[in-house]
Amino acid sequence: MTHIQQPHLSHIPADLVAIHDYEHRAAEFIRHDILEYIASGCADDLTMQRNRQRLDDIPLQARLLQDFQQANTHTTLFGQPLAHPLLLGPVAHQQLVHPAGELATAEAAAAMATPMVVSTLASTTLETIASHHQGALWFQLYWQHDRSNSLALVQRAERSGYQVLVITLDAPVNGLRNRPQRAKFQLPDGVIEANLQHQPRPAQRTLSAEQSIILNGIMADAPTLDDLLWLRQQTRLPIVIKGVINPADAVALQAAGFDGLIVSNHGGRTLDGLPASIDALPAIRCAVGADFPVLMDSGIRRGTDVFKALALGANAVLVGRPQLYALAVAGALGVAHMLKILQDELEMTMALAGCPTIAHIQADALADR
Amino acid sequence: MTHIQQPHLSHIPADLVAIHDYEHRAAEFIRHDILEYIASGCADDLTMQRNRQRLDDIPLQARLLQDFQQANTHTTLFGQPLAHPLLLGPVAHQQLVHPAGELATAEAAAAMATPMVVSTLASTTLETIASHHQGALWFQLYWQHDRSNSLALVQRAERSGYQVLVITLDAPVNGLRNRPQRAKFQLPDGVIEANLQHQPRPAQRTLSAEQSIILNGIMADAPTLDDLLWLRQQTRLPIVIKGVINPADAVALQAAGFDGLIVSNHGGRTLDGLPASIDALPAIRCAVGADFPVLMDSGIRRGTDVFKALALGANAVLVGRPQLYALAVAGALGVAHMLKILQDELEMTMALAGCPTIAHIQADALADR
Amino acid sequence: MTHIQQPHLSHIPADLVAIHDYEHRAAEFIRHDILEYIASGCADDLTMQRNRQRLDDIPLQARLLQDFQQANTHTTLFGQPLAHPLLLGPVAHQQLVHPAGELATAEAAAAMATPMVVSTLASTTLETIASHHQGALWFQLYWQHDRSNSLALVQRAERSGYQVLVITLDAPVNGLRNRPQRAKFQLPDGVIEANLQHQPRPAQRTLSAEQSIILNGIMADAPTLDDLLWLRQQTRLPIVIKGVINPADAVALQAAGFDGLIVSNHGGRTLDGLPASIDALPAIRCAVGADFPVLMDSGIRRGTDVFKALALGANAVLVGRPQLYALAVAGALGVAHMLKILQDELEMTMALAGCPTIAHIQADALADR
Amino acid sequence: MTHIQQPHLSHIPADLVAIHDYEHRAAEFIRHDILEYIASGCADDLTMQRNRQRLDDIPLQARLLQDFQQANTHTTLFGQPLAHPLLLGPVAHQQLVHPAGELATAEAAAAMATPMVVSTLASTTLETIASHHQGALWFQLYWQHDRSNSLALVQRAERSGYQVLVITLDAPVNGLRNRPQRAKFQLPDGVIEANLQHQPRPAQRTLSAEQSIILNGIMADAPTLDDLLWLRQQTRLPIVIKGVINPADAVALQAAGFDGLIVSNHGGRTLDGLPASIDALPAIRCAVGADFPVLMDSGIRRGTDVFKALALGANAVLVGRPQLYALAVAGALGVAHMLKILQDELEMTMALAGCPTIAHIQADALADR
Repeated sequence: MTHIQQPHLSHIPADLVAIHDYEHRAAEFIRHDILEYIASGCADDLTMQRNRQRLDDIPLQARLLQDFQQANTHTTLFGQPLAHPLLLGPVAHQQLVHPAGELATAEAAAAMATPMVVSTLASTTLETIASHHQGALWFQLYWQHDRSNSLALVQRAERSGYQVLVITLDAPVNGLRNRPQRAKFQLPDGVIEANLQHQPRPAQRTLSAEQSIILNGIMADAPTLDDLLWLRQQTRLPIVIKGVINPADAVALQAAGFDGLIVSNHGGRTLDGLPASIDALPAIRCAVGADFPVLMDSGIRRGTDVFKALALGANAVLVGRPQLYALAVAGALGVAHMLKILQDELEMTMALAGCPTIAHIQADALADR
Repeated sequence: MTHIQQPHLSHIPADLVAIHDYEHRAAEFIRHDILEYIASGCADDLTMQRNRQRLDDIPLQARLLQDFQQANTHTTLFGQPLAHPLLLGPVAHQQLVHPAGELATAEAAAAMATPMVVSTLASTTLETIASHHQGALWFQLYWQHDRSNSLALVQRAERSGYQVLVITLDAPVNGLRNRPQRAKFQLPDGVIEANLQHQPRPAQRTLSAEQSIILNGIMADAPTLDDLLWLRQQTRLPIVIKGVINPADAVALQAAGFDGLIVSNHGGRTLDGLPASIDALPAIRCAVGADFPVLMDSGIRRGTDVFKALALGANAVLVGRPQLYALAVAGALGVAHMLKILQDELEMTMALAGCPTIAHIQADALADR
Repeated sequence: MTHIQQPHLSHIPADLVAIHDYEHRAAEFIRHDILEYIASGCADDLTMQRNRQRLDDIPLQARLLQDFQQANTHTTLFGQPLAHPLLLGPVAHQQLVHPAGELATAEAAAAMATPMVVSTLASTTLETIASHHQGALWFQLYWQHDRSNSLALVQRAERSGYQVLVITLDAPVNGLRNRPQRAKFQLPDGVIEANLQHQPRPAQRTLSAEQSIILNGIMADAPTLDDLLWLRQQTRLPIVIKGVINPADAVALQAAGFDGLIVSNHGGRTLDGLPASIDALPAIRCAVGADFPVLMDSGIRRGTDVFKALALGANAVLVGRPQLYALAVAGALGVAHMLKILQDELEMTMALAGCPTIAHIQADALADR
Repeated sequence: MTHIQQPHLSHIPADLVAIHDYEHRAAEFIRHDILEYIASGCADDLTMQRNRQRLDDIPLQARLLQDFQQANTHTTLFGQPLAHPLLLGPVAHQQLVHPAGELATAEAAAAMATPMVVSTLASTTLETIASHHQGALWFQLYWQHDRSNSLALVQRAERSGYQVLVITLDAPVNGLRNRPQRAKFQLPDGVIEANLQHQPRPAQRTLSAEQSIILNGIMADAPTLDDLLWLRQQTRLPIVIKGVINPADAVALQAAGFDGLIVSNHGGRTLDGLPASIDALPAIRCAVGADFPVLMDSGIRRGTDVFKALALGANAVLVGRPQLYALAVAGALGVAHMLKILQDELEMTMALAGCPTIAHIQADALADR
């Protein structure tokens, strides 16, 4: 693929020791316009920067002399055991940074026993990924204009053995991608939205002169709650709603019968100005009660970040962009190493914070601000 | 005009996608001393920077799955419908950056259905602008030393079809324009205050040795409340007072019978140290009640900024300097594009914040800080 | 004087429009080590930077349509009228930056009707300054090891017509002047402490091996309250204590019969870590009541700063370092211009904040933070 | 030693006047990878930076006219008099920066009457240090896998005349040393952990495939409270626990019979995200009452920092990295000078804050934030 700048590393250099190192080195491997597409948030990157700043600001609490004889990082989500409370979030177009794209990521995910959430916009079909993959797969759905197109995707995922359905609701319109626009980003030839190649094109919508393309055109393609409740009836998979920031939405979605939430501002890529996910999390956990599955993403770069999210109410977290940075630098090996770094960092944090199990990671594991 | 540095663009480059891009590129088109005059606030630019910082700091709230079937951005001001809650604020001397000056801006305003507030200090007469313009025009008045001179301008505006009178009260003395002073800014030959060319010069004021040119000289030319109440009787136009920051002033002006307010610190160009307009807005809305027209300017650069101002109580907002940046870069086309950007960004914000109409943009559309 | 780098300007360039401009240009006129001595605070400059930061952070309030017919900036201090609430604070060694030193400053002070506080450490004798000066002079006393030496200075000042005695108490030990130490600053030949040339040397103090040069040596030379009460009996001059930050000190000094206070952290030159003077001011005004004279210095660079100090309780303010910057750049003319800038800026602030007189500048002239 | 870059200075240059100067100049004397090992915190250095930022932010209070006739800096710890409330904290591997390593540091400590805490990981044996040293020595213990190995070290220290035992509990796993990892730091040949040369190697631990090297391997080597209580019975030395941040730990350790605590985040070298030590201190002092010995380290670089820690509840403070910077730059002379700077700065702070003795340094010696 001509947009790939140089061969990926076939080993991990000794000075590549943190997610930030993958991020910094990614510029050597990813074409500038593509990197701008990946690395940017939206508009002025306020929310993307806030995600990191607010995670950094949260103080951890130390605890000495705790009993680690039974220590472990196990947890369960939707009845499935997880070795670590960590998933690969849905990331589109992975062939942008590596010829093997999602297949390499999936290989790493399986090796590290980490569930992978495959994106609707994957550059490889969900069936191909599933047929190569040994581990747990979830499928992320972007609503496809109407019920039948959307259902078709869900049924393909179900047939292919995907275990959980994630529906992303926070991007009915695309964010303001000013940085990739300035870099004149376009999907390179050969990088396709593989799952959607044989979808029928939606009928052209006709708007009156007074109507807004955004408010009356694009938004008319967004799903309604009725659409989602209908879909809920069509599948046996647990459904997790991704992109929740408002506690009122969390309560409504829980009441409507969905199975879990992902607190997310889409890595700062949709509406610039949203709170950091980590700031939205506590009120949402409070709103849905202790037992409802709540995951979080947006800004996780350190094991301490995973720990902070868990202490503030998340059952698990997802990482997004780091997949692409690691994939670009060192392929499947890079993604596996990136996951290993986060796992080890989480364990070190638990050791030093005196939390021998995931259940010990509660609000008192943080210091007062 | 020799002070124009290079021809304006006749098309919009693909990487010009945000108001900030116009601001950054303006330096290629505007002579340095003129740009300093335009881009600076006053003194140390504290208030100008605060305008942006405080807007950026306000967190938006997300809302999912709202019904957008009737979505629109319509509002009304003084009985007139507005397609978007956005106006072109009064900006002086527009021929500083483009030979067609206010006429080009007016052309863009009409194309984008955006009311334009013409400045007393326009470089084209209010009559010429009105005769070329297809859309809604408001006239901004700087008090002209005495009642008769001031009334003359108002009557000219009224005769020319201006719909609203904006009286700017926050600049009885000029701000401390240190940056243009350092850049040795002077109005270039040929850029005139066209509306004032035939005004009689005010009588020279004689001060005693003990008296202050500022406190006793310049301030004696400022209007009193009596002057304004008198003027209120001379015109049928709604009168909006611009430059209100203090809620006590807001209440007094409402009680005195004026028709609306513009919360403004003059883009940070008068008194360095004033609060950000966005910080002054809520107390003023609270003071005048829900139904009194309150607009805001100073610092609006994004659709999210428009949204935040509306959520904190504004009926509409005005943009100032971006007119000049867009005019300098690409003339009428630039100004129209600049307005289109803001309109689209506002619509995207409404879509992602789950607010289908202007009336939905209330305080709960912001997250807790 | 060989330490003077280049001739002072004989006119004021058009781009020299703010105190900051004098500060920035001073480096062209002042030898590096001397500038480090003047421009530095102490240790890490925390307090010096805090002085500016906290002044900048205070928001002003606007007020429209006030009556300025009787507007003026007059005030009185110790029975003397002041044209503006502004004094030249005590600044040592003025020949460091200009051959005429204090005499040039005094000339400017007289021209601008601004009282000048002459330092104990002036490079010209207090008698010479008084004999050349047309305006109000105050004398600043550093305690001179014992009562008789200290009294001698006070009596010289009294004989020479000084009107107020300022006793500086906040520097019983010198601050940690790391920046001038690093620059290897030394008083150049010929710059002397003129007032102290004929003072008898204090007796050498003998310390035991266990005793501290600082705590038992230098501190033994500091005056006690008894010393000051004794001095209080020896002079008819009003005594103002300079260097008060703690409200408990303010109350004690008021109770002891002194005539006024100067809230000051010595421009950040004594104890790094002290609060900004502007932050210490309100509690001190509150502690001593509305009628006791309280002045403030440390960080005043703008007319808005003067205004903020007055709004928070000061009767007047003093400026320090700007004297030296202006003196270095343009001699007496520079100092006069510097004072004119501050006077004009204060008047503009009063105009725009709607405060026609000094008495109007109260807490409600500031916006809520 | 080939890793030493250039000869140490044999005198103190005139521009070396603060701890920061030693830190800045250390790069000339310490090999890059070694400096990264010394100067870094862990992970993203958040806690290390917070240590400095929060100390800088605390405002001091001034106090005038206090009686300094009996002024001194004396205090006592565990029955031993201290000339100043300042110790040399345990710092490993001092031959990394100077051939004489700990012996040079000990020489300086004795000269300045400052207790030195010798590290388990010293590059010279504790016996050698003790045999050369004239002053007070404490011994810092890292638990050595089991009771007998740990006790052996304690008994050696006891036999050699060490007066206090410091047990470090906050590093059961090493911090995430990303900066030295990136710099490819390794202990140079010849720099050894001298105290541990003849320790038997711990038995290899066997983990199941499911178990974590960190949580089940390394953590199994950490001491339990029972281990510590057992050790408490084996020695007559006072035991101080180092690395306490959580007040709950402080209370438990006090109740368990230990003799004192050191509030410390290990200079930011263990868990990135911990609060600044200075922020953890007040709650710990409050939890253990006024009479229990509490020391503090992490970030002390100025006499004002010592003063602030004392005002917030510490009996004394320890300095860490500055030992290595001073040792690298100028050997024993440098360390002595570094201590002299801190002592003098503390005395100047006491003079200017009006605190004639250590007992006067209470919370009211700080200003309100």
